[in-house]
Amino acid sequence: MNIAIIGLGVIGGSFAMGLQAAGYENVFGVDINEESIEFAEKKGFIRKGVVDAQEILPDMDVILLSLYPSQIVPFVKQHKALFKTGVVLTDVTGVKTEIIKQVTTVLPETADFVFAHPMRGSEKKGIIGADYTRFIGANALITPIPSNTENNLQLIEKLYRGIGFKQVTRVSPKLHDEQIAYVSQLMHALSVAVVNSSQASEETLTFAGNSFQELTRIADINGELWSELFLNNRQALLNSINTFETELDKLKQTLAEDDEESLKEIFSRAATQRRKWY
Amino acid sequence: MNIAIIGLGVIGGSFAMGLQAAGYENVFGVDINEESIEFAEKKGFIRKGVVDAQEILPDMDVILLSLYPSQIVPFVKQHKALFKTGVVLTDVTGVKTEIIKQVTTVLPETADFVFAHPMRGSEKKGIIGADYTRFIGANALITPIPSNTENNLQLIEKLYRGIGFKQVTRVSPKLHDEQIAYVSQLMHALSVAVVNSSQASEETLTFAGNSFQELTRIADINGELWSELFLNNRQALLNSINTFETELDKLKQTLAEDDEESLKEIFSRAATQRRKWY
Repeated sequence: MNIAIIGLGVIGGSFAMGLQAAGYENVFGVDINEESIEFAEKKGFIRKGVVDAQEILPDMDVILLSLYPSQIVPFVKQHKALFKTGVVLTDVTGVKTEIIKQVTTVLPETADFVFAHPMRGSEKKGIIGADYTRFIGANALITPIPSNTENNLQLIEKLYRGIGFKQVTRVSPKLHDEQIAYVSQLMHALSVAVVNSSQASEETLTFAGNSFQELTRIADINGELWSELFLNNRQALLNSINTFETELDKLKQTLAEDDEESLKEIFSRAATQRRKWY
Repeated sequence: MNIAIIGLGVIGGSFAMGLQAAGYENVFGVDINEESIEFAEKKGFIRKGVVDAQEILPDMDVILLSLYPSQIVPFVKQHKALFKTGVVLTDVTGVKTEIIKQVTTVLPETADFVFAHPMRGSEKKGIIGADYTRFIGANALITPIPSNTENNLQLIEKLYRGIGFKQVTRVSPKLHDEQIAYVSQLMHALSVAVVNSSQASEETLTFAGNSFQELTRIADINGELWSELFLNNRQALLNSINTFETELDKLKQTLAEDDEESLKEIFSRAATQRRKWY
């Protein structure tokens, strides 16, 4: 089985590395950056890398697109004439409904696209940050669409499990986007708003403990990528922020009314739920 | 120098342990729980522990109150007749203005109270969670009041540095409370509201990555303590939440208006600031 990784960044590179480690011998790489290709070849992440996808695409059985959301449709459009019949494409995008809508309008019938979302990002950038061990024990989500065959869904699931992902769950694109808006995008929105707050100052670190450091970690954000992810899921994210604010308002009210009993009840509910999760 | 730790919980216990490790031989403990005393004596954190503070207070040169905010004034009121002339009291409370206001009305003139805030909490509870190494490299804040002598301020600063605190900074109670509202209390408010959001469900962990786990860690909160901390600083915290919401609103607006340029600008500002800090 020939597998092409399109985009040898930190995520694509980690996938290439992980697939090699899992025993897949025919992993190929495509990147516009020749240095990334050289690095990946030298490290043995890929068997061969090319700048121009055309050189290898006709022989590929699986194409893993590790691209920004906005690059997926252009890639499919530009290269679909070269796709092998029966090729399975897959992506790593953090939002689904909008991407699926766009991609399915341009996808040839002879190709199957299994949309997937590995649930482990990285603050690092580029192939030099590649490290497949970040995937070990992580979760991944597959969002099947009606045209997917069961075989192809299982093929992608097997690749993920081979790399070390623990839980690979199938969910609807809608549920995926609603939940990702909550558990991931909302976290990034809060972290960014904390750091950009007008209360931030030169002196902030004099006062900060570990919770501030931890909560603001993800504010060192890749804005190019995350603006695409936010805007491709903007309604779900807006709903999530509004739902969160409803809860924050309850807390504000207890402060405004000096209502210790209600505040304790809010804290107790949170502590119980958090302990249930972890 | 005889030092009494009042309250052998996780913080008081860590202080006792740290003072011993720093070479202070005469550290005594007071706790209503006899098991905590036994544990602290056995581990060598304290030279001797008692349930009734009266037994040791007349000989104490330093009294470190590791109590809940609401317990400080009652303790001082009840025991001030026994304080040695020239005694130095200190606390570990996370809010200052309100506590200072309350304490100074009941403090005898022969006692000096140096208000302090070690910037490293714990999710653990009780003396069995005591571990002074959490303080090593941490920050601490001292909020001097006009009646403090320079000698006594330096005495408490020396104790903190001896235990391993790296930065011990003097700040005004007002600045302390404003900044703590931002860097600590706001973090807890956000974390609690995230966990209590109506979007939370049984399925949440299927979708959650490390940012969710990290950001919600402090939602497993000690509600008894934190309701006191929040309410004793409620105006500053309300201001901090409102300032934060102003920033979050800007982000919401870019989503509502599908404004990629402004969203990128917001992300870029956050990333730059976060990298400046850490």
